[in-house]
Amino acid sequence: MNEELLTRNMAALFSRRSDVITGIGDDAAVLDSGSQDGTWLLAAADQVLEDVHFLPGTDPGKVAVKLLNRNISDIAAMGGRPAHALVTLALNPLDEAWLDAFNLALEDLASANGISVIGGDVARSPVPGKTASLTILGHVEKEKLCLRSNAKAGDVLYVTGSFGRSFPTGHHLTFRPRLEQARFLAGVYTCAMMDVSDGLAKDLARFAAASGITAEITELAHIPGRDGATGEEKLYDGEDYELLIAVPPEKCDALEKAWCFPDVPLTKAGIFEAGPQDLQEKGYDHFHHEN
Amino acid sequence: MNEELLTRNMAALFSRRSDVITGIGDDAAVLDSGSQDGTWLLAAADQVLEDVHFLPGTDPGKVAVKLLNRNISDIAAMGGRPAHALVTLALNPLDEAWLDAFNLALEDLASANGISVIGGDVARSPVPGKTASLTILGHVEKEKLCLRSNAKAGDVLYVTGSFGRSFPTGHHLTFRPRLEQARFLAGVYTCAMMDVSDGLAKDLARFAAASGITAEITELAHIPGRDGATGEEKLYDGEDYELLIAVPPEKCDALEKAWCFPDVPLTKAGIFEAGPQDLQEKGYDHFHHEN
Repeated sequence: MNEELLTRNMAALFSRRSDVITGIGDDAAVLDSGSQDGTWLLAAADQVLEDVHFLPGTDPGKVAVKLLNRNISDIAAMGGRPAHALVTLALNPLDEAWLDAFNLALEDLASANGISVIGGDVARSPVPGKTASLTILGHVEKEKLCLRSNAKAGDVLYVTGSFGRSFPTGHHLTFRPRLEQARFLAGVYTCAMMDVSDGLAKDLARFAAASGITAEITELAHIPGRDGATGEEKLYDGEDYELLIAVPPEKCDALEKAWCFPDVPLTKAGIFEAGPQDLQEKGYDHFHHEN
Repeated sequence: MNEELLTRNMAALFSRRSDVITGIGDDAAVLDSGSQDGTWLLAAADQVLEDVHFLPGTDPGKVAVKLLNRNISDIAAMGGRPAHALVTLALNPLDEAWLDAFNLALEDLASANGISVIGGDVARSPVPGKTASLTILGHVEKEKLCLRSNAKAGDVLYVTGSFGRSFPTGHHLTFRPRLEQARFLAGVYTCAMMDVSDGLAKDLARFAAASGITAEITELAHIPGRDGATGEEKLYDGEDYELLIAVPPEKCDALEKAWCFPDVPLTKAGIFEAGPQDLQEKGYDHFHHEN
């Protein structure tokens, strides 16, 4: 069983209240919270495990930063702003110094992003290891909401940043989620984005499939590679935390002129087209990854 | 380091946005979501670990039910209604049949309570064991909101249900959170409730301390014991998932007359009084419990 099948099974199983705009299957769920200010509520949950997402001995602050940034990246890909976080930790050993360093770094990054940590639970795990789970809440203006299912045939695929070699470079611990860039894009140049955590090829296939179309990377050589990454590494390594963006062709010139993030390249990478998407792309699978 | 200290450390550390009505330290956080219908948003996170909260070999459906019901109990204690849930699972082995049974039971209980499961993540843990974390979202009408900090000197302490011997009787897996009872009480007979998960004595001490007063159990013999529980067991066993309720004295007669849940006893158990609360009550500590 792979993550693909699992997510599809869950999306099919769980019923949706009338206030659920988008449930399982996108970077975050979208809820109609009845807000007066024209926003929807976003909610996503993600976890990091020792020996899967970080090595034993990793600085606890870096673990907290990775966990929160993964979740911020999910909110960013929806076009939203993060607001609140709830954290559960299962730790063995339950090391007070580790926990203090984790919480301090979590608060630093949270407050820098306007996020309040509002809930938490810490348990001593009976087996050695560390599991940290975080739920993030956020908001998105209705006209800025970006969904995986909104790409259209003819849209141009853009990507932010660089790809590949996230683990050997430490990028997976130190990346900055593309929150400002996503806010710049959302509702103006795109209503269809996705963040890349499981590899460019695999996540692009999911993106296209969610939109009922297919996607092709036509400009692999132009996509920046991290640390001299090869084409293979750019396509199939994981944990890039960059954005995939579907842009209607008539908006491409304006977008390229308006792009105002000199440190973050924006690259025209491919095209969305009519036709069925093959979901058998290889790529990074958290289930089988041992770093 | 105990759970008490940990929670106080976290509550002091994490900053609060202006939309955070109540942060860490109550059964759930309370957020002003700007809703037009006069409700606030509730959010709580909790987890269950194999060999801590359930024994290896426990039916996966019962694990799902316990996890969700613990969280529903937190929403109930705030006077609210649950609405949405996000779940992360770290599993080893990652057993498809286990996961299917867990998800089916989760959906059954969720939909029976009007809850939509809107997000999730499943990871294969590198060490044997199971950790399941759930974040619940809910709503509460502003006039029904119940807080731990709202008890007043002179209030009468009521408790629902029975206490003690939760583990030997299996109650910790099969309890029904007091959602209907809490909704009946909230805003009419009380604005101060708490659910009991760590033992009557310990949680009552927390309740009183949060209100800046003290509490005394005066009617221990009248509090129903589960399965013939002794006074000690009623006070210090954990995982009762009953309600502690602070009721202004002038409302007690009306409450006792109006109580309409024949299967759930409501017992006058003690009194809240002015004075400092001793937080050194012994009781159930998830950190040191190995069942």
